[in-house]
Amino acid sequence: MSNTANLSKLCIHTITTKPWDIEMAAAKYSKSGVQGITVWRDALAGRNIKATGHLLRDNGLNIVSLCRGGFFANANSGKRNALIDDNRKAIEEAFELGTKMVVLVCGAEPEQSLEDSRKQIQDGIAAILPDAAAAGVQLAIEPLHPMYADTRSAINTLSQANDMVEALNSQWVGVAVDVYHLWWDPNLENEIKRCGKNNALLAFHICDWKTPTTDMLNDRGVMGEGCIPIEKIKNWVRQTGFNGFNEVEIFSTEYWKKDQSIFLEEIITAYKKLK
Amino acid sequence: MSNTANLSKLCIHTITTKPWDIEMAAAKYSKSGVQGITVWRDALAGRNIKATGHLLRDNGLNIVSLCRGGFFANANSGKRNALIDDNRKAIEEAFELGTKMVVLVCGAEPEQSLEDSRKQIQDGIAAILPDAAAAGVQLAIEPLHPMYADTRSAINTLSQANDMVEALNSQWVGVAVDVYHLWWDPNLENEIKRCGKNNALLAFHICDWKTPTTDMLNDRGVMGEGCIPIEKIKNWVRQTGFNGFNEVEIFSTEYWKKDQSIFLEEIITAYKKLK
Repeated sequence: MSNTANLSKLCIHTITTKPWDIEMAAAKYSKSGVQGITVWRDALAGRNIKATGHLLRDNGLNIVSLCRGGFFANANSGKRNALIDDNRKAIEEAFELGTKMVVLVCGAEPEQSLEDSRKQIQDGIAAILPDAAAAGVQLAIEPLHPMYADTRSAINTLSQANDMVEALNSQWVGVAVDVYHLWWDPNLENEIKRCGKNNALLAFHICDWKTPTTDMLNDRGVMGEGCIPIEKIKNWVRQTGFNGFNEVEIFSTEYWKKDQSIFLEEIITAYKKLK
Repeated sequence: MSNTANLSKLCIHTITTKPWDIEMAAAKYSKSGVQGITVWRDALAGRNIKATGHLLRDNGLNIVSLCRGGFFANANSGKRNALIDDNRKAIEEAFELGTKMVVLVCGAEPEQSLEDSRKQIQDGIAAILPDAAAAGVQLAIEPLHPMYADTRSAINTLSQANDMVEALNSQWVGVAVDVYHLWWDPNLENEIKRCGKNNALLAFHICDWKTPTTDMLNDRGVMGEGCIPIEKIKNWVRQTGFNGFNEVEIFSTEYWKKDQSIFLEEIITAYKKLK
């Protein structure tokens, strides 16, 4: 049986239904049979994090990860230590929330070279590794699409993320594979295998690439309405032995305008169609 | 001396100053000391192509290439033969214009896999190779940024373009390196070397990546106003022995609104600053 025939592996990111607060999202996801939630840090603003973790679990939800740490690349900005501290805070929040993973969007800066950004990312992760180990929280490096190489991530392929995982060589560091960022890469299948062999494939994010895409950040599609070979990539991921959630992460100005209950049902319908 | 200290290697694409017709562009480029022009096919509409070639040369301009052929990936659309014929027409136009190169934007389709598109591209180029050889026109495969993998090009890295050049194994096929598409690639230096060793580096296009980029197609920057390490890439290209033009190719809704004479001077000033 396909692992999408039921919803036992379906996780939704709180940002996907951004208009809902986390309490509403928890209630709605739960009612619809969704069994996993990834929490974006903004959804925790002003809340007791431990209590929020209890609330999510009381709704039958697995808390798959906390999004997001990262943005290390600021050595010359005077903010580097503050950003490393913020990553420590993310680890602490993950611990309090009761999730075992923090996803890292690693950062980049148009003023410095990608090589410098990558070095700072690696050094930054190394600096917070003791905190991750102490909290029992894994850090998932998420390579981002090359169109974000100016500001959001100097890690733009799975190959680069795998390189960094191997260099850091810690059970507390792995990779988040997101089809939106990686679908175009001719080396993707091999790099997914490599990631699996390293026991480093920690998370799997899905959505789709719309044609045309009218906004570089907030115009993602629901699975099936775009050109990403999601099922093929999902099968590569599953063949590594990955048994985690399929996490739906959609940023969409258009869909955030919709009735979010209808949008959630559309997501679930699309999810069930995946083979 | 840097090869940008004077304008002997500066080429401008007609689309860069899109509001000008080709006669105006020729006069203005020439007056400013620009010595190369790459002609976009739309600029030839309604004109006698041979006569236009004479006009450009009379203005002291080298006709570096014709943009563009390609868009092969339509096997199931019923348009495949027509598109191959259109590529033959592009070769013929290049011959009439008096340029030795046609740049190929290879195409992709959201309805089919990237692998299928790539196969169709390779078969399409193979089909027109005899025409290219007969006309003495080289075909330059231009790998496009992965953000165009849905519709414009299934060739998204220089590695893929080099693979295809090696597979086709013809003196009439090479590569156009455009910094906008390739700057983020961690393998770029090695792949430029590989391309050089194949004697396949036919063209070098420059512009910059703005932060933020507000439009995926038409928001390119002038050299120096973005994050692309143009000088570094230019040096890699020159180290292969490439002695061709530095071609300025900027699509920009914003800059097309400007007085194009002022825009041209800004391009030249930015160009001279490149080391």
